[in-house]
Amino acid sequence: MTDLSAFADLDLDRARRRGYPEAVFCAGKTESQVAGIAAEMRTHPEVVTLFTRATEAHAAAVRKELPDALHDEEACLLAWPPTPPAPTGGPVAVVAAGTSDLPVAREALLTARYLGRHADLVVDVGVAGLHRILGHLDLLRRARAVVVVAGMDGALPGVVAGLISAPVVAVPTSVGYGAAFEGLAALLTMLNACAPGVAVVNIDNGYGAGHLAAQIAAPA
Amino acid sequence: MTDLSAFADLDLDRARRRGYPEAVFCAGKTESQVAGIAAEMRTHPEVVTLFTRATEAHAAAVRKELPDALHDEEACLLAWPPTPPAPTGGPVAVVAAGTSDLPVAREALLTARYLGRHADLVVDVGVAGLHRILGHLDLLRRARAVVVVAGMDGALPGVVAGLISAPVVAVPTSVGYGAAFEGLAALLTMLNACAPGVAVVNIDNGYGAGHLAAQIAAPA
Amino acid sequence: MTDLSAFADLDLDRARRRGYPEAVFCAGKTESQVAGIAAEMRTHPEVVTLFTRATEAHAAAVRKELPDALHDEEACLLAWPPTPPAPTGGPVAVVAAGTSDLPVAREALLTARYLGRHADLVVDVGVAGLHRILGHLDLLRRARAVVVVAGMDGALPGVVAGLISAPVVAVPTSVGYGAAFEGLAALLTMLNACAPGVAVVNIDNGYGAGHLAAQIAAPA
Amino acid sequence: MTDLSAFADLDLDRARRRGYPEAVFCAGKTESQVAGIAAEMRTHPEVVTLFTRATEAHAAAVRKELPDALHDEEACLLAWPPTPPAPTGGPVAVVAAGTSDLPVAREALLTARYLGRHADLVVDVGVAGLHRILGHLDLLRRARAVVVVAGMDGALPGVVAGLISAPVVAVPTSVGYGAAFEGLAALLTMLNACAPGVAVVNIDNGYGAGHLAAQIAAPA
Amino acid sequence: MTDLSAFADLDLDRARRRGYPEAVFCAGKTESQVAGIAAEMRTHPEVVTLFTRATEAHAAAVRKELPDALHDEEACLLAWPPTPPAPTGGPVAVVAAGTSDLPVAREALLTARYLGRHADLVVDVGVAGLHRILGHLDLLRRARAVVVVAGMDGALPGVVAGLISAPVVAVPTSVGYGAAFEGLAALLTMLNACAPGVAVVNIDNGYGAGHLAAQIAAPA
Amino acid sequence: MTDLSAFADLDLDRARRRGYPEAVFCAGKTESQVAGIAAEMRTHPEVVTLFTRATEAHAAAVRKELPDALHDEEACLLAWPPTPPAPTGGPVAVVAAGTSDLPVAREALLTARYLGRHADLVVDVGVAGLHRILGHLDLLRRARAVVVVAGMDGALPGVVAGLISAPVVAVPTSVGYGAAFEGLAALLTMLNACAPGVAVVNIDNGYGAGHLAAQIAAPA
Amino acid sequence: MTDLSAFADLDLDRARRRGYPEAVFCAGKTESQVAGIAAEMRTHPEVVTLFTRATEAHAAAVRKELPDALHDEEACLLAWPPTPPAPTGGPVAVVAAGTSDLPVAREALLTARYLGRHADLVVDVGVAGLHRILGHLDLLRRARAVVVVAGMDGALPGVVAGLISAPVVAVPTSVGYGAAFEGLAALLTMLNACAPGVAVVNIDNGYGAGHLAAQIAAPA
Amino acid sequence: MTDLSAFADLDLDRARRRGYPEAVFCAGKTESQVAGIAAEMRTHPEVVTLFTRATEAHAAAVRKELPDALHDEEACLLAWPPTPPAPTGGPVAVVAAGTSDLPVAREALLTARYLGRHADLVVDVGVAGLHRILGHLDLLRRARAVVVVAGMDGALPGVVAGLISAPVVAVPTSVGYGAAFEGLAALLTMLNACAPGVAVVNIDNGYGAGHLAAQIAAPA
Repeated sequence: MTDLSAFADLDLDRARRRGYPEAVFCAGKTESQVAGIAAEMRTHPEVVTLFTRATEAHAAAVRKELPDALHDEEACLLAWPPTPPAPTGGPVAVVAAGTSDLPVAREALLTARYLGRHADLVVDVGVAGLHRILGHLDLLRRARAVVVVAGMDGALPGVVAGLISAPVVAVPTSVGYGAAFEGLAALLTMLNACAPGVAVVNIDNGYGAGHLAAQIAAPA
Repeated sequence: MTDLSAFADLDLDRARRRGYPEAVFCAGKTESQVAGIAAEMRTHPEVVTLFTRATEAHAAAVRKELPDALHDEEACLLAWPPTPPAPTGGPVAVVAAGTSDLPVAREALLTARYLGRHADLVVDVGVAGLHRILGHLDLLRRARAVVVVAGMDGALPGVVAGLISAPVVAVPTSVGYGAAFEGLAALLTMLNACAPGVAVVNIDNGYGAGHLAAQIAAPA
Repeated sequence: MTDLSAFADLDLDRARRRGYPEAVFCAGKTESQVAGIAAEMRTHPEVVTLFTRATEAHAAAVRKELPDALHDEEACLLAWPPTPPAPTGGPVAVVAAGTSDLPVAREALLTARYLGRHADLVVDVGVAGLHRILGHLDLLRRARAVVVVAGMDGALPGVVAGLISAPVVAVPTSVGYGAAFEGLAALLTMLNACAPGVAVVNIDNGYGAGHLAAQIAAPA
Repeated sequence: MTDLSAFADLDLDRARRRGYPEAVFCAGKTESQVAGIAAEMRTHPEVVTLFTRATEAHAAAVRKELPDALHDEEACLLAWPPTPPAPTGGPVAVVAAGTSDLPVAREALLTARYLGRHADLVVDVGVAGLHRILGHLDLLRRARAVVVVAGMDGALPGVVAGLISAPVVAVPTSVGYGAAFEGLAALLTMLNACAPGVAVVNIDNGYGAGHLAAQIAAPA
Repeated sequence: MTDLSAFADLDLDRARRRGYPEAVFCAGKTESQVAGIAAEMRTHPEVVTLFTRATEAHAAAVRKELPDALHDEEACLLAWPPTPPAPTGGPVAVVAAGTSDLPVAREALLTARYLGRHADLVVDVGVAGLHRILGHLDLLRRARAVVVVAGMDGALPGVVAGLISAPVVAVPTSVGYGAAFEGLAALLTMLNACAPGVAVVNIDNGYGAGHLAAQIAAPA
Repeated sequence: MTDLSAFADLDLDRARRRGYPEAVFCAGKTESQVAGIAAEMRTHPEVVTLFTRATEAHAAAVRKELPDALHDEEACLLAWPPTPPAPTGGPVAVVAAGTSDLPVAREALLTARYLGRHADLVVDVGVAGLHRILGHLDLLRRARAVVVVAGMDGALPGVVAGLISAPVVAVPTSVGYGAAFEGLAALLTMLNACAPGVAVVNIDNGYGAGHLAAQIAAPA
Repeated sequence: MTDLSAFADLDLDRARRRGYPEAVFCAGKTESQVAGIAAEMRTHPEVVTLFTRATEAHAAAVRKELPDALHDEEACLLAWPPTPPAPTGGPVAVVAAGTSDLPVAREALLTARYLGRHADLVVDVGVAGLHRILGHLDLLRRARAVVVVAGMDGALPGVVAGLISAPVVAVPTSVGYGAAFEGLAALLTMLNACAPGVAVVNIDNGYGAGHLAAQIAAPA
Repeated sequence: MTDLSAFADLDLDRARRRGYPEAVFCAGKTESQVAGIAAEMRTHPEVVTLFTRATEAHAAAVRKELPDALHDEEACLLAWPPTPPAPTGGPVAVVAAGTSDLPVAREALLTARYLGRHADLVVDVGVAGLHRILGHLDLLRRARAVVVVAGMDGALPGVVAGLISAPVVAVPTSVGYGAAFEGLAALLTMLNACAPGVAVVNIDNGYGAGHLAAQIAAPA
């Protein structure tokens, strides 16, 4: 067994202190490092643990230690214990501008659910066809926080923010090519959104967006 | 009198629809354009109006039409009617890393107040002296949303987010020189904050941050 | 009298060859250089001449040589002969997202008119309030080419292109601050517009956009 | 069969509304998502569908559902129904500066044809040998819209625009190395073209350029 | 045997002149080039040689010539002779913000040791949980130089510098994604650290940081 | 009298804790803010205070409160008490590549002296004439730390580091034009210096470099 | 009299050693520093001295010490002794794409002349009208080195290089706006010129281009 | 046999007109396209043809058509006819800063030779050890043009230019990591070289540098 302290100093108090799950960012970690952390968490079932950006190999390593962990392949995410907590607080809506934005959107959706919120997903509603987003206005206006995931021109969050009163958490994605510059174009668009009420997280950071939405929609 | 429709199409319904004030971004507008808008708003006292990024000349133009408007010179902001609404919802805290971040922090503070929140300001608590921010933990942990304003390395929001459960709205400022690249360094730092729970707005966008914090802390 | 050949080689044949006006880009030219060109053009009334990016000093220099030249101060443009040609071809629409985009929008509007098109202007119709742009759909759908001028997030051209069949010529402006990066954010947004049918010109290049729209809407 | 609504919301009305084909951008979509869309389109033969940026695997998935779809391997494009509509409107010319620009140029060429235009292709006419482009002047001057595809220095569109009266749609390509920065150099060159009449689309966006050229050359 | 002079001009005098090891940067060198250098060094056991950025293939080539060379796989580093010199001067501390920063941190650690310093490693102490770094204050305050390795937001060096009197050598890493821009975000953060006493080396340059720390902590 | 706590939270304990002066970065502070801090420091003569980046107006405000403060106009720096402490530790050398780098070099020089080191200045020794830097080798080799200040190509620190054993603190300056990009070129050069032993601070950050050199050369 | 050694270490041996003039880059130097250097040069009439980037104030300071110095105001250049040496070597041609490029072109022209070459100037021959450059082919083909100065799209050097056999020294200028990014666009274009035979110097660096052309055209 | 005119328009007149070889840039071309060109060139033995950036597969395709072509694997270059012309004009020196710069340096070396110059190669003479470059001064001072190839900090060309009278053609390489940004750092360094007499070509453009050096050193 690898000695955990050689590469990680788990901060379970932080999870307890802040009242939120422990998240293990798998990218850049070896399979044996991820396995070591999974083994450690097995002894802490009171803390929800999310393994994000997990490759298939990471996932196998986690499930060897935590066989009943949920694994969402599209979102590259594992969660343990596998069942999310019962929802509290307000509802969260996650909106994906295009089909290619789905992996990031699902990461946000699942994160919000494992942080204890009710969360719904709306897909393929880019600004090139406004009637599509307008068709979901009721759902969006009921939400306490809306995550909007978009690549390419990243214009959707500003349009959504102009339609609702709740805060919009905007997630630029690396979807696109050329002058999309791996998500930079969408990031800049969102930072410059004309409508107030848009806050931005890192490119492709579905986890961070879902976390933030869950915090915003937390019970008062 | 200038013909308003030649340069602006005020969207008071939006203000009413979204339940928030009308904001007039003065930068790039001529004094007579700003005056024209101010004159129009005089007939709509039911809508709180904020004039942001107002130069001294803009401010004079506004106050000629709305003599009792509040003018905060440090924040370059005018508000009319001058008295903010009675606070509802949860408390907001605004934190400024350094003295030079004060204008942006005050813009956030006043915006939150004019959107109807109780809001407090904490100043000069950069990460180079951790005891300073730690001395304000009680205030920060009571807030429903915390705005953190920082230039240079922009490290403060991530540190604050690690200490509290509420969402952090991070505002990079253009304070700094050289490789600060007019706020770009702080912006990137904040987008990459290790702690979840940090959402970012545009460089120097105190208005957007205050608006967002007010939305987060709105009554459920 | 300055010797024109020392600094300029006017290409009136090009104007004739391509069938369009001669344009003198004043920025970077001295007043006496601009005056020298104006004096030369006085002998060529058969060629429409546009002086773009003219400061007040440039304008004075031009009008000393061509006293009846039209001078649009907001657009920083002079035209001589002062009356635009009678319109031919299809109609052009110029749309400005915000009040601050007006100088660029007017440069496009006047250029299209002096190239012989009928051209209309629509102002302050940013995406934060969709009903504003939707209120002008008839005008937009009648146009043979639509110029859309927008700073900040630059999202408007993509939304317009999704609503009409004619080509959209998008002009990013340097309006905005912080991560707008002097128009770069809007430029990238427009290059990545989800809707096909959007072509982009340089930041603040109202002249180029108006010229292009006039070419698109030229009689077949 | 995958449930289409889980990842896509086809907007066939948009195609009909704008009078142009439906385009499916395959990059970032799974083969089964592309197949699902292809299956759906089989029931809508009245709408021309283009599958762009299709890998060999995408192409196989499409042709399993639409066996008679045209597949142009160099352009990474499939079209269904396979025969383009009879040409209307004015002619389009597509010019490729170098051999390596051919895939993008062919994408533009085919898009223009499937949008109903007559379109010709001219290849390997970079500015290092001016006589080559000059040898095609007749063809270029007959076109109602000219698409110019170029990587590296991206200088060709400006030269072409100086020679003709019709609008030039410039497509920067990622051809080149080093300070070409994956097409950024060519993109900037084109945005700064000295000759008016140049509009720019995203790097490698042959589809967008062909679409725009077809719109420009549409019957009045 | 390859002729060494065809591709390298070893500067052993420099090593002797500056009193430090010879370092062979393997990236970009062929295996046979690296082997040729290793063979040459075998005749100079009085000079400590470090092979940095060595792939497995590089390592095998080196060990064919220098079978007893130390090979640290995580740090991608080989050292020969294998035993570091006895420590002189002051102690060095190497701090890694996250698990993924370990390869770079170990490169720094080993470099400092092979330059003759006592060096300790502290891991997984990012700013999101301040108590973790605070728990190591004694070790940090005893060091004559502290290397701080961090990716993502790169905020740790500034926090450490505010807590100690010794110089901090900051190493940004390419750990992160999106707006981390391969280490650029962390690099900018460190260059803008609010606390004085932070000097920065190239992204992922563990070797340079360890070298510098060893120079700072050298015997007076 | 301005209320100091409204804009600053002086951390004199930090100065004492770290054993170094308090520095007041004047850029971005109003004159009255700087004056308020100066007045406060008057009651703490046991702490050396440096006012950096002081305009003439800032300097006047400081000297009204601290009339005997030293004011170095070229370095835009004030120090109080005016006499630096008696030197301890090892010597520091400050090298300026060109005449225009002098203001930054002097800021480094004075900072090192007020932190208690002996410090010498060498000027106008750029790499275009190697014999100039070679003529100062004795001085450079005696130093415990060498600050090298250079703009334009920023090549000097790497050359110096190849000649000596002590650490080089490199300061890029914004001297230059065009592709110097306000110091970015020099910054990148220094981060990529071929010789180990080069650490870099922010562009134009003479204060930080002098501080770091003083820490490196501090008594063991 | 200022002590020259406090800010400059003139390297007249270098001038003699390399056989070229001494150049004093005035930007960033104070008037008294420039005057000090001018006074020193008065005692070395055997060395041609060029004062580049001289403001009016710099020029006055120089001419107080060297009253007969040539001053070209457009090029911001002074030369002393005032008469250039008799031409040797091959001829140099300097080409300016636009009127606004003239200051840089004249700096190149005069530098080449003061380094002892015959040099001619051709103006306003941008690629938007190819016949203009084609009209100067004889002059260009006679030159031993051709300097091409261009802003905006920077396309001219590549076109010229395709027409002649001699090397082209390309000078991007900061002429332009928006996505010209202060000369960056032209710089990238020139670095990616399709035709071989183009070498690039810094943005606006007329001096460097003229110097290089003079070296290329030097007597064998 | 592929129809050559479908993808290339060989410009053998240009080669003859400019008096230099035809170069085929293989990157981005298919093997069959390269083979088609090779087959065509077989009928033109009077023109020297260089195939640059050739992969092994490209090389095999060329040698199937031109079996006796020279193939330099390190330089990724083929030449046909295989024997370079007898040298004329002045000598060329090619200098590589590090071992990893050799492929680019050899491309320059061979290009210069096939353009008819005598050319020598000097390797591994980076600025970190000045005595190494100083040891080759005689060779460098005899050359009519010197190509200097360097990655990382790119400082060598400026140092060389300060030591010789002939022009330096600087080639930045993509050697390095982190803030080398694939050669951008070296490129900027070279553009800002303090010594006059440095001209820069694209990153990794050994062909362009060798071509330019051959032009400079051509017989008068």
